[in-house]
Amino acid sequence: MNYFSSDFKLGILGGGQLGKMLLYDTRRFDIQTVVMDPSAEAPCKIACNEFIQGDLMDFDAVYQFGKKVDLLTIEIENVNVDALEKLEDEGLPVYPSSATLRRIQNKAVQKLFYTDNNIPTAPFTRFAYAAEIETALKNESLSFPFVWKSARFGYDGQGVKIIKTWSDLEGIPAQECIAEEMIPFKNELAVIVARDVKGNVATYPVVEMEFHPEANQVEYVICPARIDKEVVKKAQLIALKVSKAYEHVGLLAVEMFQTKDDKILVNEVAPRPHNSGHYSIEASYTNQFEQHLRAILGLPLGKTDSTVAGVMVNLVGEEGYEGQVKYERIEEIMAMEGVNPHIYGKKITRPFRKMGHVTIVDENMDAARKKAAIVKRTIKVISEK
Amino acid sequence: MNYFSSDFKLGILGGGQLGKMLLYDTRRFDIQTVVMDPSAEAPCKIACNEFIQGDLMDFDAVYQFGKKVDLLTIEIENVNVDALEKLEDEGLPVYPSSATLRRIQNKAVQKLFYTDNNIPTAPFTRFAYAAEIETALKNESLSFPFVWKSARFGYDGQGVKIIKTWSDLEGIPAQECIAEEMIPFKNELAVIVARDVKGNVATYPVVEMEFHPEANQVEYVICPARIDKEVVKKAQLIALKVSKAYEHVGLLAVEMFQTKDDKILVNEVAPRPHNSGHYSIEASYTNQFEQHLRAILGLPLGKTDSTVAGVMVNLVGEEGYEGQVKYERIEEIMAMEGVNPHIYGKKITRPFRKMGHVTIVDENMDAARKKAAIVKRTIKVISEK
Repeated sequence: MNYFSSDFKLGILGGGQLGKMLLYDTRRFDIQTVVMDPSAEAPCKIACNEFIQGDLMDFDAVYQFGKKVDLLTIEIENVNVDALEKLEDEGLPVYPSSATLRRIQNKAVQKLFYTDNNIPTAPFTRFAYAAEIETALKNESLSFPFVWKSARFGYDGQGVKIIKTWSDLEGIPAQECIAEEMIPFKNELAVIVARDVKGNVATYPVVEMEFHPEANQVEYVICPARIDKEVVKKAQLIALKVSKAYEHVGLLAVEMFQTKDDKILVNEVAPRPHNSGHYSIEASYTNQFEQHLRAILGLPLGKTDSTVAGVMVNLVGEEGYEGQVKYERIEEIMAMEGVNPHIYGKKITRPFRKMGHVTIVDENMDAARKKAAIVKRTIKVISEK
Repeated sequence: MNYFSSDFKLGILGGGQLGKMLLYDTRRFDIQTVVMDPSAEAPCKIACNEFIQGDLMDFDAVYQFGKKVDLLTIEIENVNVDALEKLEDEGLPVYPSSATLRRIQNKAVQKLFYTDNNIPTAPFTRFAYAAEIETALKNESLSFPFVWKSARFGYDGQGVKIIKTWSDLEGIPAQECIAEEMIPFKNELAVIVARDVKGNVATYPVVEMEFHPEANQVEYVICPARIDKEVVKKAQLIALKVSKAYEHVGLLAVEMFQTKDDKILVNEVAPRPHNSGHYSIEASYTNQFEQHLRAILGLPLGKTDSTVAGVMVNLVGEEGYEGQVKYERIEEIMAMEGVNPHIYGKKITRPFRKMGHVTIVDENMDAARKKAAIVKRTIKVISEK
């Protein structure tokens, strides 16, 4: 199949920032794209060849979209999987497959999948309704503290909460969820694995994630992780095991905990380009978006090594601001060497909304990490008034 | 001025591959763009916010276009400069300015500008009509061999010819031209200088260009140039002198000859992103397109150092093929590490037409250069039948 400058059409479900960055590489290869997103203001609206406004959870919308394209991928996993399955039955290649997505969309199913496949993960209990948590606490089959996770549709730090007391349970939605043991960990790590239809794999370096204590969002992604070589090996082997179990096609971002005694526990996965791989645009031989395309199109996988150290800082909406976005002091960070802002093009900011990211690259990791802290202190995502 | 995610509109004259690559960076910064190009098939048609089909040499088309935008730049220098001048008079920032463009558009004027500014260049004679060349040859004020250059609109190797005998003169267009002394040179070099409104400058490393012997097109661009440090210094100083003389805003690509006795002679300049800077997308801290934006928008200039060695190979249409383009054996080159193809998205190939480029990056220059030769031998730009 010759994709380049041909009539082949790649369909992308979701038109957010991940899709937007994926479109840089479809453009670079001159691959025709059709994007569907519910928002008329989606960052992908330009740069794709055709944009369709539609509900990603609606069977008919996703099915009709799939009939227009030659291959289908996603930039968000919350899509109608039944429609994908029907499209697959009718012969459309869908990467990641409906089977992979079903195992990931629901966090309870995802956790059970790790148990079934002998993949280390934090102990957990599944609850069909949040109300069952109270019963379990009263029965003492569950105890404080624990991590509550909604089984479906977590995003941008929503759907996850640390529960230390009864009062923390207030306002928890009454839906399927899991309660996970709180693991005291040294580091949160991630590994992105690319896998093609034939099962060839390529693994990116282990990255280290520093979380914002309140927002439950990644604040810094550091590549390579500043951890022992033995732990690097262990994390990569486990990521490959997870990749093999899912039999995904395309990228799989595997998030993990490094415990205090250097065990690796899988936290969760995403079968697509991921926030933990944004650094690769500037720091890697092959960025994660190009790699995803290579994997789903059956092209040779690219080199995953880094050329320089990279630290990514997420740009999220400042607390107390909602409205027309403004990037305060962006010029100041642009005056620093090796500092690369990415603005996603969302017009409205809200507290903790992902509005962009900045990648800092340097030959020296310490220098990059120090600069990242200055970037974080300097640029503010606020609103006009 | 806060450009990011605002209503500010950047106008770009020309919608070819340079504009297309520039749009990756306007998208990354969420800067709104309006592009004008005569072709409805222009590579820029998607990825800009608004596309207008129009003749770049037409006064009214360019003037009306300028009235729609807040700042105007170009990706090709053959535009109606009178319209730009009127727009400037009415207060529109135009970078590069009409004054810079007037000194560059006409190659005879450009050469005289070097002489006036004491910038070393190959000796030349200006002819108002090509027919005057014959008279000069008969008078013996001109002798074979020499380089004929059309004063206006050279592109893709057109408008330049080496004249060794009377028969080489056949078919030379009857227009204003120059006859330049043939300089035996060791290397062709180029330096890209970025300059902002305040006169701040940033210089990219000296690159080396290897030309295709028949097509008169650059075949490889090698960064950094494999030349003595003393020559590097000399080339950079001369590039800065040229930059200062033009008082351009944005990029200026300065092409130079390194003579057999290590003199530097300026060949020609381009006041915009340039083929000799494409390697920077993969190999530099700040790529040339982002740097052009930084310069024209008054943002701080970025770091111009390389992170790795880079060799760029132009992908031009194979001789003997015209029609619907096909990139033969592209998968093979993509299987090589550090090989990055860029497909411009032109649907029709013609012999020697620039259809794309490939950048090869490696920690080691020799390895990159060897790989580039394999890339060149492997991928072929042909047509479907």
